[in-house]
Amino acid sequence: MNAEIIAVGSELLLGQIVNTNAKFISKCLAEIGVNVFHHTVVGDNANRLKKSIEVAEKRANLIIFTGGLGPTKDDLTKETIAKHIGKKLVIDEQAMQSIEAYFKRTKRVMTENNKKQALVLEGAKVLPNEHGMAPGMFLHNDTHSYVLLPGPPHEMEPMFLHYGMKAIQEKMDVKEKIESRVLRFFGIGESQLETEIESILDRQSNPTIAPLASETEVTLRITSKHQSSEEARRLIDQAEHELLSYVGDYFYGYDDTSLMAELIKILEKQNLTIACAESLTAGQFQSEMASYPGVSSILKGGVVCYTNEAKQKMVNVKKETIQQFGAVSKETAKELAENILLSLDSDIGISFTGVAGPDTLEGKPAGTVWIGIARKNHETKTFLLELASSRNGNRSRTVKYGCHYLMKELTK
Amino acid sequence: MNAEIIAVGSELLLGQIVNTNAKFISKCLAEIGVNVFHHTVVGDNANRLKKSIEVAEKRANLIIFTGGLGPTKDDLTKETIAKHIGKKLVIDEQAMQSIEAYFKRTKRVMTENNKKQALVLEGAKVLPNEHGMAPGMFLHNDTHSYVLLPGPPHEMEPMFLHYGMKAIQEKMDVKEKIESRVLRFFGIGESQLETEIESILDRQSNPTIAPLASETEVTLRITSKHQSSEEARRLIDQAEHELLSYVGDYFYGYDDTSLMAELIKILEKQNLTIACAESLTAGQFQSEMASYPGVSSILKGGVVCYTNEAKQKMVNVKKETIQQFGAVSKETAKELAENILLSLDSDIGISFTGVAGPDTLEGKPAGTVWIGIARKNHETKTFLLELASSRNGNRSRTVKYGCHYLMKELTK
Repeated sequence: MNAEIIAVGSELLLGQIVNTNAKFISKCLAEIGVNVFHHTVVGDNANRLKKSIEVAEKRANLIIFTGGLGPTKDDLTKETIAKHIGKKLVIDEQAMQSIEAYFKRTKRVMTENNKKQALVLEGAKVLPNEHGMAPGMFLHNDTHSYVLLPGPPHEMEPMFLHYGMKAIQEKMDVKEKIESRVLRFFGIGESQLETEIESILDRQSNPTIAPLASETEVTLRITSKHQSSEEARRLIDQAEHELLSYVGDYFYGYDDTSLMAELIKILEKQNLTIACAESLTAGQFQSEMASYPGVSSILKGGVVCYTNEAKQKMVNVKKETIQQFGAVSKETAKELAENILLSLDSDIGISFTGVAGPDTLEGKPAGTVWIGIARKNHETKTFLLELASSRNGNRSRTVKYGCHYLMKELTK
Repeated sequence: MNAEIIAVGSELLLGQIVNTNAKFISKCLAEIGVNVFHHTVVGDNANRLKKSIEVAEKRANLIIFTGGLGPTKDDLTKETIAKHIGKKLVIDEQAMQSIEAYFKRTKRVMTENNKKQALVLEGAKVLPNEHGMAPGMFLHNDTHSYVLLPGPPHEMEPMFLHYGMKAIQEKMDVKEKIESRVLRFFGIGESQLETEIESILDRQSNPTIAPLASETEVTLRITSKHQSSEEARRLIDQAEHELLSYVGDYFYGYDDTSLMAELIKILEKQNLTIACAESLTAGQFQSEMASYPGVSSILKGGVVCYTNEAKQKMVNVKKETIQQFGAVSKETAKELAENILLSLDSDIGISFTGVAGPDTLEGKPAGTVWIGIARKNHETKTFLLELASSRNGNRSRTVKYGCHYLMKELTK
């Protein structure tokens, strides 16, 4: 079964909202093994919508519409489909009752145009709307299945999950289950990663392996199909095992995790506290850590020592250290990490000092960063970064490298 | 001129990412008067991409592609377009040099597949990529204009803004100039703002006034059309003047500014330094401030006092204060702000202490926040917030309220 998702709404074409509905539906369909080959967005215009349906019918046998089911004049999805496939629109009594009940409940006046929302395609299975008024529909004719869903995500998502998916699955001749897993990597570029695993990529078929690069990370998505979910997962396990034998050094987690989330897990497990001295990152490391609930048992706090004055006054960095080596130096990073650990009596002290940019500092180019990691009963480690991003790209990368190096230290 | 935006990438069809690029580009095109009638998403498949181009060519004369310009094998946008319109791909020397320079700068190994990124359509105007490697392209043949942009938003957005739009506008037969201006408001809800300016909204035609609410702010976009840009701007001035007579108290800036950027301007102008003591925000206020270059003359630094221990050790909050009033209290906020000012000898001390959530703290509900503002030779002020967002929503709003209240204090 091949699907196309058509979102109807001029507000999408004007760039006022993002088409999150297509993402949501695509993700759901991938999980039940329906291929989505196209998304289309078209405005509130009957003629252009009709033509888009014709295009979609040539390349998909399941067409899912979102939007245009409301009470106003520019809502014309079901009217256009009805005309196109030669079906009448009929009042759905249950939908009408629930619309009337809605107005009663919210003590609002029901204007005449709201009755339009109870009209459905003759012969369609009606999909109840538990969070709004316009019902959804599922209709199958000889050649195609059509699913009509409301536009607002808070109405569409539960309707599709609870009723739409079921209607589709009942029609599907389900043979294969699709399973997928995302592996996350840090510290390796997309092209280098691909070169390392080229031999695997070249002979992939089932599972397939798809690399995707974001600004700072690379992910590999492994997707497998099989009649048995268990076997599909076994194929993924096997591919993962082989991939990690090449690039396992850069692997840090699965699916929707982040470097910070993984670091927090390790700190929690090892029962360790941390204190931070941040210069160029100016609190970003600590702020990101605090974005996860329950970190107060880990994060003791620390200092934003953006100026040299603050480095001396708040973290007792020796004046001579800064004079001799500069604020952006191995020596300053070391003192910052060690002193913040002592100040807050934590197990770990981490420090970030560097040149965010755009200008150079102390003759050092933008992107030069030192990270210090001090630990009780361990020698202090320092790490040099030479980044090449924008000011805030450099700051964000520094935070990620901080997580990366600290994790490596703690799991050695 | 009618445009279609084609996003190329299987990750979109699998529901792994949202097509924010289409929204961004649509918004930009709306502002320069280009109609967007369709968005299409197609996977990394040459045959389906070719067919999508054929469909688009029938209904648009400007086709904008995003994605598929990278170094890997599944990046096939320019190859497919080249074949379709009968153009060769040629090495762009400047792009090649900048790719080589990128690898040199970041001290990474340049694998062979990266050279592919320097290939461009013969005869195309090359759009520089200032945040990545793959260059963009603009090409016009007898019937259509084609714009090729990279997929990652942080590369695509600046490229389109600075180079893509210009190339399109040069091709356009512009008769009416469109001017627009965004007014930004904080501290007022969308519906309240709309009620206040209802009389203006009701009779708008040229300029038009469009309210848009984000999670924490409301903006009004004023757009006017006229053959003369000057006259279009005059119409906007007039509308702005009238709008601000109703809701000027909540207005803080224009277009892409932010509360923090406006606060920095005021601090710079008044030649003031600031020090910060952050509990629930955990460095977010300082980190946001440091995201603007050149703040080292303003931001002395401060403390992330996430724990009570840190509040006492690092900011000398009296134990009795915390015992008697709690860490989330007017009294603690006051001491934090006053003490951090003294520690770093700054002109201003600002403090944030509160319950981010999701759990309550000291019997206070999530969203309870105290902000302290201490100034040399001024009485210390404190402000209570009662927020109702998520953990990180509450933290972000706290930072914004900090900017808001401090600006109000400094411009009284």
